[in-house]
Amino acid sequence: MPKIIDHDQRRTEIIDITWQLIVEGGIEAATMRDIAKRAGFANGALKHYFPGKDDIIRGAYERALSSITEQLQPHIEGLTGLAAIRAAMIHTLPLTADDVTAARVLLSYLERCAFNPGLDQHYGSHVQNWKAGYREWLRQARQAGEVLTSVDDELLISEIIQMNVGATILSVVAAEQIDTEVLLSQVDRFVERLQQTC
Amino acid sequence: MPKIIDHDQRRTEIIDITWQLIVEGGIEAATMRDIAKRAGFANGALKHYFPGKDDIIRGAYERALSSITEQLQPHIEGLTGLAAIRAAMIHTLPLTADDVTAARVLLSYLERCAFNPGLDQHYGSHVQNWKAGYREWLRQARQAGEVLTSVDDELLISEIIQMNVGATILSVVAAEQIDTEVLLSQVDRFVERLQQTC
Repeated sequence: MPKIIDHDQRRTEIIDITWQLIVEGGIEAATMRDIAKRAGFANGALKHYFPGKDDIIRGAYERALSSITEQLQPHIEGLTGLAAIRAAMIHTLPLTADDVTAARVLLSYLERCAFNPGLDQHYGSHVQNWKAGYREWLRQARQAGEVLTSVDDELLISEIIQMNVGATILSVVAAEQIDTEVLLSQVDRFVERLQQTC
Repeated sequence: MPKIIDHDQRRTEIIDITWQLIVEGGIEAATMRDIAKRAGFANGALKHYFPGKDDIIRGAYERALSSITEQLQPHIEGLTGLAAIRAAMIHTLPLTADDVTAARVLLSYLERCAFNPGLDQHYGSHVQNWKAGYREWLRQARQAGEVLTSVDDELLISEIIQMNVGATILSVVAAEQIDTEVLLSQVDRFVERLQQTC
């Protein structure tokens, strides 16, 4: 089925181009016209692969998410409980230049989400799954006696997510106010707190 | 000097219109053309008040910031140390519909910042000032013996900022994943932790 393979390649190419345009100039720069132009398509042909800009933006966002997930996977492979929590917290921090690039694409996507209820649901689902992962690891950690804090799990999970989203956004828009050592120490302190009864 | 007053009014009107356009459709919807059209200006006349879109966006952002600061001011008036920290943390949370509207404008602004080094500096300065406020309150609180934690102040300050930025962004793009009670409990827990030696 060479035609199907070709379509998939084309989709991948379009996402590549969109990613590049977002990185260069943000969501505004990535117009359907510019994406089509750089891909060597007529505007109409682009719509054959992606009906509208939101579909393309979503594609770019899903790549950003996949890149984060793929990067995380080897670090949490086989881990459970507290070790998994710690590894997941560290390896989703914006530590490298590539992480910050993915964060830029994420920020563009989130801006789009804010004004498009359909996309909004999409990000909400991601946060929900992300929380579910930590919820399960916390359950394992409590069962294993690794987590002793009396603080409610939902408070802890929200804290993990907010800290990560905050660090991600700040790494893009106030990079000089974010320090890698501070981010890593925060994770250490958080893990220590989980192990304390007070 | 009626002419000067008129100019100021015009600027305010333009910011009003931009704010409304951002709230309705995000940064993309707030084009110079649309802003001029709604203000009843020729595109060229708009440039007399604001040279470019970034200047208008910055104006809208500064209004969002003023609105947060004005709202906060009566709550921290006369407070120092731990009481000021607690009040500032609570009264900058995205708790009301107006807060979430301001957060939407902020998100649009941040997306713009991510791809415009000049604006980026601008937000970085805000974060720096915001941190400086907490740094001074923490100093007062330690001096008064209200804060006993051995955790480094810079870690605590970064945590406050990241938690707030994370909650603000999530209130816009994953509202169903944010719970007011959880946000308020997080502040309580944070303040408790400051008072503990462990």
